[in-house]
Amino acid sequence: MPATHAMFQTIALVVRQNTDGIEESVDSVIDFLQRAGHSVVLEEQTAAHLGRHGVEVLNAAGIGARADAAIVMGGDGTMLGIARQLAPYDVPLIGINQGRLGFMTDIPLDNMLDVLAKILGGSYKAERRSLLEGSVLRDGEVIHVGMAVNDVVVARGAGAGMAELRVEVDGHFMYNQRSDGLIIATPTGSTAYALSAGGPLLHPSLGGIVLVPIAPHALSNRPIVLPESSEIVVEIVRGRDISVNFDMQTFASLAAQDRIVIRRSPHTISFLHPHDWSYYNTLREKLHWNEYPSGEGKLS
Amino acid sequence: MPATHAMFQTIALVVRQNTDGIEESVDSVIDFLQRAGHSVVLEEQTAAHLGRHGVEVLNAAGIGARADAAIVMGGDGTMLGIARQLAPYDVPLIGINQGRLGFMTDIPLDNMLDVLAKILGGSYKAERRSLLEGSVLRDGEVIHVGMAVNDVVVARGAGAGMAELRVEVDGHFMYNQRSDGLIIATPTGSTAYALSAGGPLLHPSLGGIVLVPIAPHALSNRPIVLPESSEIVVEIVRGRDISVNFDMQTFASLAAQDRIVIRRSPHTISFLHPHDWSYYNTLREKLHWNEYPSGEGKLS
Amino acid sequence: MPATHAMFQTIALVVRQNTDGIEESVDSVIDFLQRAGHSVVLEEQTAAHLGRHGVEVLNAAGIGARADAAIVMGGDGTMLGIARQLAPYDVPLIGINQGRLGFMTDIPLDNMLDVLAKILGGSYKAERRSLLEGSVLRDGEVIHVGMAVNDVVVARGAGAGMAELRVEVDGHFMYNQRSDGLIIATPTGSTAYALSAGGPLLHPSLGGIVLVPIAPHALSNRPIVLPESSEIVVEIVRGRDISVNFDMQTFASLAAQDRIVIRRSPHTISFLHPHDWSYYNTLREKLHWNEYPSGEGKLS
Amino acid sequence: MPATHAMFQTIALVVRQNTDGIEESVDSVIDFLQRAGHSVVLEEQTAAHLGRHGVEVLNAAGIGARADAAIVMGGDGTMLGIARQLAPYDVPLIGINQGRLGFMTDIPLDNMLDVLAKILGGSYKAERRSLLEGSVLRDGEVIHVGMAVNDVVVARGAGAGMAELRVEVDGHFMYNQRSDGLIIATPTGSTAYALSAGGPLLHPSLGGIVLVPIAPHALSNRPIVLPESSEIVVEIVRGRDISVNFDMQTFASLAAQDRIVIRRSPHTISFLHPHDWSYYNTLREKLHWNEYPSGEGKLS
Repeated sequence: MPATHAMFQTIALVVRQNTDGIEESVDSVIDFLQRAGHSVVLEEQTAAHLGRHGVEVLNAAGIGARADAAIVMGGDGTMLGIARQLAPYDVPLIGINQGRLGFMTDIPLDNMLDVLAKILGGSYKAERRSLLEGSVLRDGEVIHVGMAVNDVVVARGAGAGMAELRVEVDGHFMYNQRSDGLIIATPTGSTAYALSAGGPLLHPSLGGIVLVPIAPHALSNRPIVLPESSEIVVEIVRGRDISVNFDMQTFASLAAQDRIVIRRSPHTISFLHPHDWSYYNTLREKLHWNEYPSGEGKLS
Repeated sequence: MPATHAMFQTIALVVRQNTDGIEESVDSVIDFLQRAGHSVVLEEQTAAHLGRHGVEVLNAAGIGARADAAIVMGGDGTMLGIARQLAPYDVPLIGINQGRLGFMTDIPLDNMLDVLAKILGGSYKAERRSLLEGSVLRDGEVIHVGMAVNDVVVARGAGAGMAELRVEVDGHFMYNQRSDGLIIATPTGSTAYALSAGGPLLHPSLGGIVLVPIAPHALSNRPIVLPESSEIVVEIVRGRDISVNFDMQTFASLAAQDRIVIRRSPHTISFLHPHDWSYYNTLREKLHWNEYPSGEGKLS
Repeated sequence: MPATHAMFQTIALVVRQNTDGIEESVDSVIDFLQRAGHSVVLEEQTAAHLGRHGVEVLNAAGIGARADAAIVMGGDGTMLGIARQLAPYDVPLIGINQGRLGFMTDIPLDNMLDVLAKILGGSYKAERRSLLEGSVLRDGEVIHVGMAVNDVVVARGAGAGMAELRVEVDGHFMYNQRSDGLIIATPTGSTAYALSAGGPLLHPSLGGIVLVPIAPHALSNRPIVLPESSEIVVEIVRGRDISVNFDMQTFASLAAQDRIVIRRSPHTISFLHPHDWSYYNTLREKLHWNEYPSGEGKLS
Repeated sequence: MPATHAMFQTIALVVRQNTDGIEESVDSVIDFLQRAGHSVVLEEQTAAHLGRHGVEVLNAAGIGARADAAIVMGGDGTMLGIARQLAPYDVPLIGINQGRLGFMTDIPLDNMLDVLAKILGGSYKAERRSLLEGSVLRDGEVIHVGMAVNDVVVARGAGAGMAELRVEVDGHFMYNQRSDGLIIATPTGSTAYALSAGGPLLHPSLGGIVLVPIAPHALSNRPIVLPESSEIVVEIVRGRDISVNFDMQTFASLAAQDRIVIRRSPHTISFLHPHDWSYYNTLREKLHWNEYPSGEGKLS
């Protein structure tokens, strides 16, 4: 039995739903893992939609207790969902994408077995990502808690004028912001919604949190990057239909004076990448950094 | 009787609600106008909250039929509301702000009588602004119509993922846009929400309409300025809780395949400014164009 | 002899220099044109680098006097150069790109003959573009004049602190701007340097000119779109090594108090596009409007 | 003699040149310091332009060797210059501004003596700032070195087309960037040129470096924040008149294949702020975060 099994004895498999023709790829991964001596377990929703027999089925807590790694087949959305659930258990994650490179699902389907062999054999680049946790306080009582891999977003409803949010950092008043809302994002989230709203990219190993206003009234309300030790308090000053989202999971019905307290989660997640993985390669490919609207491709 | 009365015989007065201490200013305007030989009428909501007796009260249609000009005391929001109502009647508008310069309410309260005397005496700069009109079509039937001085906004709800909108201009496919929504703004609206979302300023005399995406997924989805003759069709491809707003008046519950058809309104509005008014002065003051975060005020 | 020759009797050919393997394509275009009964002339620089015999050679003035259309083979840069030279003569331009779609060179090399046959046969979409002209005044005297298809750029040198520019429009003071410089662009130029500096896209048929500040100190110094009838005066207040560029043709050594007066040129240029050409198709392809960095291509 | 003198025995004074009426303020600071038992020394350029007798004069190295703190009277530019010179000596800096709040000169002139008394008495908030150092390599040899409090900027000349820069981080290829140039900024520099070019704000205690492209051709070339441990290599691929600036101190004449290697300096600088100083207060005031172009100051 190969030495690698000491590290990755039990492997969980999480597969995106509603993906045509994925069964064959799933079968090949399971066969590959079992042949290599790993125990394979299926995440329960994956099992429900794949309908596969003969493989043990576990929920997130079970995977957390038992698995030494989880392989996620799908896209960044699939990874996001399971990563948030597995964060308390520190199960390393391996992401396989189906056709389109993801920020978190970086292994292409068509040579996944070769790459998996190397990673599970110990040749990988591990990368740790920070998470955020947030509490909603009303009249001093916690009425909701959430965790986010990407971002916590406080935003107004579509027909609701504007939000006015009072932001404090580490007990210091930052500003009263009038806008559509405010995104508080991790480095992982800096390539998601925060980027669309005009935020900068944050390298995953930067210990930082970025605040990105959405359509702020004050034109000088630029994104600001804070140390990840910061405690950020967003208080609803006024606005209708304001909600807070944790990775797009909504808690609605916020009222004036409600406070959302956001800080780094004690949990983190780990990705296992192929040994030659580079964050910049992913950025370059996904953001088309080598394509230019103007010019003939030559310096004039 | 002075010659000016041929032009501005009857003057309507529209006053913002809930403004402490405005009564005295209103009295002085009414007195001034009556002494100068003008007939004064009060807009009906103004009359309701001011509770003033002895001055004739008219609704928007009545003002449209009878008034030769309308004086608006308040801010840009007050002006926006009455301007949209009076647009079909082509009543010129004069804007008096209470303490803070507005884009549309450019006359300061403290020397308003001098300025009014000049304007009503014929010494003014008239400026015409375009409006937008929009129709919502479902299964080929018009289910809503609206008019906008500032903008038509198609946007998703706060907890609703994203919107995918298909945009056509004059029958040509422009793009499928994934975003929080799309702002279609007049030059007047280019200093409002569109500006917050990253749009350019459009000079009021430019015959243009600007499309400004809100937090677009494609980073190259820049604002685009179209000729005002353009017919813009926004089709809901997918997204939940999508609504369309005309100057922040909401029509909610849009569904996939609904189409919003937007074009220039046949109506326009006219502002009467003091003779020395300059659009750039207003921009410079309101946008703090002469203040710089960096530097010592000297060239280093 | 076909009827089309009444319209396009003499065709000038302009070809980008230093393009490997272009000779064969040029030959096929010349053969095609001559067989179809057109007279073909070569632009003088084209003739110099292609070294081709037996075809008449003309300079820009000669082409302007004699040609009924000019076919440009190259990229947008090649088109830009000849368009500025031919602008006084109103010779319509047809752009063939070599491999990569251009904003102005929209016909792909590999089916150019089919497209040319249609266009020269009268089936085309003509599109007129505005140009800018500028004069540099020192102590009231014109010391330089220029013309631009894309943009006039007033900018500081690389190691030169910052520029302070005073901008007037139609005699009205707009602002004193501290920045790296200011771009004054046509709709054609709105997809070039102005876009890189954060400017909006302007539809070619919009009668507009956009002012885009480069790295302005005042964060609210947004791009502003003016009517194309505007006269824009940029005065150098202070700054070292300031130059003005017309389509990247530099006039250097500007000094304090120099004024650059910019207005629409009386000349315009015309592009002849294939009949099914759409401005939005070009934008969409060149700006990657259908590609998104985030998401799995599905609405979450 | 008060206990504070143990900490701040010798105080250097650095004053901005060409400031009308500053002599009186300088006198009052010197008197105040001497009465309180501190030794006062004058920076040599300060002494040259103030022409003041009876106070010892030292150059930067002398101040570094002897002073326990330096008081800087002027603006952020004055502070920037002396901070870079004093960085190797770790002399804490106290900034007094003349009329206009600075990011680094945060003490107003009109109550400076009260504030100085408290700070020198031991009641202050010390804040440490990172610096960058850079080397220019040609053919493997270092041909220039520099240090920057704010930023290192690699940029093209004004009439020079564009720059193409190849960027590597920690040995990984990031991108080939076509642009006017690239700003590599510290958190201190994030409120200076980098902000004008569209960069985010970085909190001073964030261990980060931000790369901000200037007018990049690829619209997705967003600012990216890297850990301050990063080694950044910028290689000139092509472009004319390219220079590198360290806090606006220019090293010109870069050529293709030249490499600029940038990393955190081993030196840092310390600011001493009043005890109630808040970074956010400075940001809010200097960036006008509580002023809005639109709206009446009320939620509509």
